[in-house]
Amino acid sequence: MNIPALQSIALSVRSLTIDAIQKANSGHPGMPMGAAELGAFLYGVELKYNPKDTRWLNRDRFVLSAGHGSMFLYSILHMAGFDLSLDDIKAFRQVGSKCPGHPEYGVTPGVETTTGPLGQGIANAVGMAIAERKMAAHFNRPGQKIFDHSIFVAAGDGCFMEGVASEACSLAGHLGLGNLIVYYDSNHISIDGSTDIAFTEDVGKRFEAYGWQVLRGSMYSFEELAALTAKAKAETEKPSLIILESVIGKGAPSKQGTSGIHGSPLGEEEARKAKEGLGIPPDKPFWVAPEAYAYFEAHRKTLEQEYRAWQARFEAWKKANPELARELSVWLSGRAMHEPDLPAFKTGEKIATRNASGKCLGAVAGAWPNFIGGSADLTSPNVSQLPPNADGSPIVLTKENPDGRYIHFGIREHGMAAIANGIALYGGLRPFVATFLVFSDYLRPALRLSALMKAPVVYVLTHDSIYVGEDGPTHQPIEALAALRAIPGLKVLRPADAEETAVAWRIAMERLDGPTVLVFSRQNLPVLEKADPDWPHTMALGAYVVQNPERAPDATLVASGSEVSLAIAAADIVRAQRPKTAIRVVSVPDRQAFYAAPAPVRDAILSPGSLVFVAEAGVAQGWERIAPPENILSIERFGESGPGDKVAEHLGFTAQAFAQKVLAKLG
Amino acid sequence: MNIPALQSIALSVRSLTIDAIQKANSGHPGMPMGAAELGAFLYGVELKYNPKDTRWLNRDRFVLSAGHGSMFLYSILHMAGFDLSLDDIKAFRQVGSKCPGHPEYGVTPGVETTTGPLGQGIANAVGMAIAERKMAAHFNRPGQKIFDHSIFVAAGDGCFMEGVASEACSLAGHLGLGNLIVYYDSNHISIDGSTDIAFTEDVGKRFEAYGWQVLRGSMYSFEELAALTAKAKAETEKPSLIILESVIGKGAPSKQGTSGIHGSPLGEEEARKAKEGLGIPPDKPFWVAPEAYAYFEAHRKTLEQEYRAWQARFEAWKKANPELARELSVWLSGRAMHEPDLPAFKTGEKIATRNASGKCLGAVAGAWPNFIGGSADLTSPNVSQLPPNADGSPIVLTKENPDGRYIHFGIREHGMAAIANGIALYGGLRPFVATFLVFSDYLRPALRLSALMKAPVVYVLTHDSIYVGEDGPTHQPIEALAALRAIPGLKVLRPADAEETAVAWRIAMERLDGPTVLVFSRQNLPVLEKADPDWPHTMALGAYVVQNPERAPDATLVASGSEVSLAIAAADIVRAQRPKTAIRVVSVPDRQAFYAAPAPVRDAILSPGSLVFVAEAGVAQGWERIAPPENILSIERFGESGPGDKVAEHLGFTAQAFAQKVLAKLG
Repeated sequence: MNIPALQSIALSVRSLTIDAIQKANSGHPGMPMGAAELGAFLYGVELKYNPKDTRWLNRDRFVLSAGHGSMFLYSILHMAGFDLSLDDIKAFRQVGSKCPGHPEYGVTPGVETTTGPLGQGIANAVGMAIAERKMAAHFNRPGQKIFDHSIFVAAGDGCFMEGVASEACSLAGHLGLGNLIVYYDSNHISIDGSTDIAFTEDVGKRFEAYGWQVLRGSMYSFEELAALTAKAKAETEKPSLIILESVIGKGAPSKQGTSGIHGSPLGEEEARKAKEGLGIPPDKPFWVAPEAYAYFEAHRKTLEQEYRAWQARFEAWKKANPELARELSVWLSGRAMHEPDLPAFKTGEKIATRNASGKCLGAVAGAWPNFIGGSADLTSPNVSQLPPNADGSPIVLTKENPDGRYIHFGIREHGMAAIANGIALYGGLRPFVATFLVFSDYLRPALRLSALMKAPVVYVLTHDSIYVGEDGPTHQPIEALAALRAIPGLKVLRPADAEETAVAWRIAMERLDGPTVLVFSRQNLPVLEKADPDWPHTMALGAYVVQNPERAPDATLVASGSEVSLAIAAADIVRAQRPKTAIRVVSVPDRQAFYAAPAPVRDAILSPGSLVFVAEAGVAQGWERIAPPENILSIERFGESGPGDKVAEHLGFTAQAFAQKVLAKLG
Repeated sequence: MNIPALQSIALSVRSLTIDAIQKANSGHPGMPMGAAELGAFLYGVELKYNPKDTRWLNRDRFVLSAGHGSMFLYSILHMAGFDLSLDDIKAFRQVGSKCPGHPEYGVTPGVETTTGPLGQGIANAVGMAIAERKMAAHFNRPGQKIFDHSIFVAAGDGCFMEGVASEACSLAGHLGLGNLIVYYDSNHISIDGSTDIAFTEDVGKRFEAYGWQVLRGSMYSFEELAALTAKAKAETEKPSLIILESVIGKGAPSKQGTSGIHGSPLGEEEARKAKEGLGIPPDKPFWVAPEAYAYFEAHRKTLEQEYRAWQARFEAWKKANPELARELSVWLSGRAMHEPDLPAFKTGEKIATRNASGKCLGAVAGAWPNFIGGSADLTSPNVSQLPPNADGSPIVLTKENPDGRYIHFGIREHGMAAIANGIALYGGLRPFVATFLVFSDYLRPALRLSALMKAPVVYVLTHDSIYVGEDGPTHQPIEALAALRAIPGLKVLRPADAEETAVAWRIAMERLDGPTVLVFSRQNLPVLEKADPDWPHTMALGAYVVQNPERAPDATLVASGSEVSLAIAAADIVRAQRPKTAIRVVSVPDRQAFYAAPAPVRDAILSPGSLVFVAEAGVAQGWERIAPPENILSIERFGESGPGDKVAEHLGFTAQAFAQKVLAKLG
């Protein structure tokens, strides 16, 4: 190791951090200044990467879980030769900059995941480590290692306090993810002051309890960083936590070691004194040590050799394994290997959409052999089990079987979703996760990040309404659909029957630019006769006509999911009482898509001039766009424990009640 | 201990569990059958309670964190003499029953909190333990212990996997809650099968790392249960975890020890065989051993003596401490000690509503001396610090100062909210919690339970929109307001200025039947001149008129929070271009209240005949009820990192853009 050079890199991280945050008058200098040596060591010595090919399959992944320390990453990426100029850094935290306040996936070359909400990054890294082990197990051949790298994480106190990290790290220990190395920047300071005020647990012991290797050292010894990292890499059966004692904001003469440096600019005087003390030229803003640039220029040549060696290995592997190479290329595209052989259902057949979904899984898993996922301990109720592998190999992903496809996540919804984000970002795999719809709340912060990162994770959320029944209000979603539909970029599909379920699966799997939520019923629903002969296509636009009268409708009954059947029953009641009424019934599996559709599409469905009524077993919020409140049959309170139909009756949520609304308006 | 009697109680728990679940054809026999001995021991030996006074101040609290095992609790409560008849148990899981699928606070006498969503109960119990220690420290006098009891929890594998429990238990260890005793029903089975498939960490070691005392024993030895519990009670400096090895569904001959018994009825044959094996008369459904009834009848006399002794102590305490007694009675009422001396603000003054909120905290803390809470490590950004105590005593609640009022929750949003629920349910205290609005997602499952339980927790959520600025999309709420407003029974208040902030605090604190979210801005906002002289009263109905033209309005501009200022600016632009236009500006701090208000109230605000326009810095969802989509200025995508006003400009979210919408419609 060229320690003086590494020191110059760390010094330059501090220099850029001070100036970028000072110029933006906003940002978090504490972490980058306190952990600059780790950045220098990782990008200067340890990590395999190629700044010219940031999607290189076999690059090491680095996740800055303490995302507020974004200048740590930007400084290093700039020096290491990524497409990130000093001008980009000068635009830190400005609109349109490549250097946003927190690292954002897709915005900055070299940023592997969006971090900032604490605990998420480390959980994403667990997903990446699962993915690396699977890809390695699936594609490597004796003497031909195509996937052969590690996942590195820098995390701070905040990440270790968050429950999502606890969940993911417990699973990481269970799965023995030896390719995962987490550095704990243990500076004992958070926003409110010393961590002693709230966080006095023994983190190392906790991680040992999870089954991790736990190592300890100083942030400020490159030799120690190297030795500890070597020890971590040598342990292939367990993930490693390296606890590094550090000083937050190291180099800020009066603020280092205090919460005052965590999230505010140093201020001019402190910045000046810091530079003086550190030996940064005071008259050269955004100064980078020439030795740092020079070191990285040389280091890139070494990295390039490794990269080329891998390319040669890869070419040889492709030649030796043409079928496997074709498979890898399809996996990486995210697309299907072949048309999914989705099941057909008989009109009138009664089947819960969760069961219909279960029947689709074989087709999905067949067409997308990179389909991987599982449930938060609700495999049977979610009907999320994958069919056995054709070759009889075990399907469950375990420590011993990293090429498995089914993951038992345990009762860890939040960790599960954050892990799925990591799997999706890793590339090559198509993750899904499953739980009850009501527990979407438990995983919501990770789901939001799926949407923000446009990560194509499929969320299977069953037990979608009060019709869950006996488990009662804690298990009956009321507000969940509205809350999910409010998330930008999230596709929420609530199919009305088994046929729609199959189409929904296809839509979800064909979507590569964002997450999809599939909402399924616990209870049986009849497979509907559909008036629109082209309904699978129309459904993709959000809504289609299920029943159509011979003339222009007087009333259009709109619903999603199980309430489409209820609307059909209501239409029958209305027609029985008022035989000449022309009623249309519309299914809206994807409300947001329907609202975003062009006006002619919407008019073709809602038929301007017709009265519109809506039924949904949840809050009305958002349906008022197409119907006045009094035309909406909704549920604006929590549910009750009892058989589903009795609960519905108790809440006045019946076909009769819906019909009454229609009759009242028709006069 | 009368062990044969305790055995008869455990046997009766199994009997009632088998039959209630069999009759309902729905439920979870695994936990009650596996842990019946714990129930017999707790209610038959250990716990202090009075079935005739279920709100007794000094009762021990018992929380069934594994809420799916509700028949465990119902069986025992019935035998112990609570107002829960065999007929109630026969109506298990039926609409309107006192025995819903999961234990529900307020529905069943003796149920201390609503459980079912895993991990919540144990976190609630941490809150109760904090509350007990505070009440004891505040009200006990030498030789006069009014508060002097423990918090007991039964939890299963699921609770120990959930992150919310990790967060809360880490804090419990930090605070040294010696009054908290958690029994871990360690049966090694969850829904998906053996816990070995996902959960192999060393839970005991983890809890030792948190600073807990960890003890181990068998579920099926009453002597061991008693000895371990005594040891736990003897440790007053640390919470205790008692790991009890158990067999799920114990007594079901073929299903015990398997996941098949976790959540499904035994079925007739297995039920018959189980009864045979256990010695339960096969021909007497809902059989309870006469010895069990007899034991509890006698035991109640002992309990009654303790209860009476406490009452005498309490009376003596009241007599000796009349001022304190008055204080306690006000605390228990939840009401203010005196009118809160809320601050006044000057029209035109510019102040962020988070800062205005900070200025209100002194008044709130003064009027409600039982006001207690804190932030998830965002004390300064949330402006949630309480002013110093008048008597100079330390304000921060610590292990050494349990009578503190400010809690440093650490970066544990979910645990924080679940703990606050426990504090609220305990009684006597008025909890608040604080974090960024965008992180309401992290605590949402607990917030939902606040609403379901009608627990008056106040949520202070600052940094309420893209105007957060540089921290970027991970920190800028877009969908949060819509998602919160969708929760039944949750009051969401987003004040437009400092004056509204003070009123919002009053509304939140005067609300005793449910949680309130207070949404505050990071950025400065002018204190508005308000047309409605009675606005503080009208505001409580959801909305009021800020600016009113002299004649009936042509256009009504509706907004909440910071967008009320934007609406005023837009009105100015419209009037400048079209001078004769009559424009009204309306502030809607509480949309759900406004929608629920009587029609005349709504008409008085929206003035039928006027065009209505809405601006809110988030998704439009739900505003379509009062304005067509094209009249709504909203943000339907994630934000950007940059100074707040630049971000707003970039997104086209400006007064100018809002004015254009109005001008386009006015023609």
